[in-house]
Amino acid sequence: MANMIENDVFLAFSTYATIVILKMLLMAPLTGYYRITRGAFANEEDVGKSGDKKLLRTHPDVERVRRCHQNDIENIIPFVLIGLLYSLTGPDLGTALLHFRVFAASRIFHTISYVGALPQPSRGLSWILGMLVTFSMAYRVLSAVLFL
Amino acid sequence: MANMIENDVFLAFSTYATIVILKMLLMAPLTGYYRITRGAFANEEDVGKSGDKKLLRTHPDVERVRRCHQNDIENIIPFVLIGLLYSLTGPDLGTALLHFRVFAASRIFHTISYVGALPQPSRGLSWILGMLVTFSMAYRVLSAVLFL
Amino acid sequence: MANMIENDVFLAFSTYATIVILKMLLMAPLTGYYRITRGAFANEEDVGKSGDKKLLRTHPDVERVRRCHQNDIENIIPFVLIGLLYSLTGPDLGTALLHFRVFAASRIFHTISYVGALPQPSRGLSWILGMLVTFSMAYRVLSAVLFL
Repeated sequence: MANMIENDVFLAFSTYATIVILKMLLMAPLTGYYRITRGAFANEEDVGKSGDKKLLRTHPDVERVRRCHQNDIENIIPFVLIGLLYSLTGPDLGTALLHFRVFAASRIFHTISYVGALPQPSRGLSWILGMLVTFSMAYRVLSAVLFL
Repeated sequence: MANMIENDVFLAFSTYATIVILKMLLMAPLTGYYRITRGAFANEEDVGKSGDKKLLRTHPDVERVRRCHQNDIENIIPFVLIGLLYSLTGPDLGTALLHFRVFAASRIFHTISYVGALPQPSRGLSWILGMLVTFSMAYRVLSAVLFL
Repeated sequence: MANMIENDVFLAFSTYATIVILKMLLMAPLTGYYRITRGAFANEEDVGKSGDKKLLRTHPDVERVRRCHQNDIENIIPFVLIGLLYSLTGPDLGTALLHFRVFAASRIFHTISYVGALPQPSRGLSWILGMLVTFSMAYRVLSAVLFL
């Protein structure tokens, strides 16, 4: 597999893919933090033997982080999958880096604007920017490999 | 990486994987369309400064599209991941194309029957067909590479 | 692509990735089983022409399996994506197998403790263990390939 590991585009892809997946994974502990501080749990076994059933509820802050996590799943995983195929089509390094960097930045800003409840269109624009990067890579993949 | 790009099965996989991921990504704008036309939003910042809190609600049509999107995540991502490994096991091109085409068709029909609320078992059968394709590829992967 | 298929780490990765994805896919029929036995459906077309609207409801057992499925999506897909990149960095076979086996075991135990509603911290610990495996692989990927 030396040929992959020696390819700069693939190294850059691996780096940015890992960064955005780690960002997505960190939404889970963040949800846990909000569940504990807001006292809003989903499972009976999570509120202890005392069984304080009042803590089995939803809380707007917890639901907000969960929606942000879900949006990551809907956007970051397609980016990584399409990006892997894109990297294998041999794109120009500068063009590839531009795609990866814009996507990573857009998703970090998306999380800040979602969890921080910043006024629109900050969240909307960062979401669209990430989508456009993935669409651009998908266009390149289909142009390069189309085999129906 | 020329060896991958010159492999017909991998080209076909890349094509169909990109198509079904794009189909999945399009569920997000479709959700947005239903949120706007039905007036049902999840975030306070999405309903504007006027703060029409009545629009912070769920609507059956929005929830239906979101369930369809979630079902895509649960089925299309496993297809792409297993399909990538399957393509690397060197399957016969005709067999591989059959798997990819049936899966893509089943998921497009699944979306039509879900969003259009077609009578069962149209949605159920298209979901099962997609699952069977993924199971068939997983069986081939495990048969070819088993290393526990 | 012979070089991938002849690499033991990649064979082991393919095996464990397929196993955990199959485990995740099986949550869907399990959800269906609980929906039918508990009489709790999400779509009007699923309750038949008689239109027994009382069956359009949520049930704690169904929601529990769905949360377990969602947790799988949040954890197993990142494992497979990071694990693919990790396998390409040429790790020691023993170390790689340790990562894959611990992850697979932790997720199987996570499902048992979630669906069986075992007392905490059984579910929490199995979740954290899986996360640690993915973080460890991500650390190795970033150490080996960092290209920003």
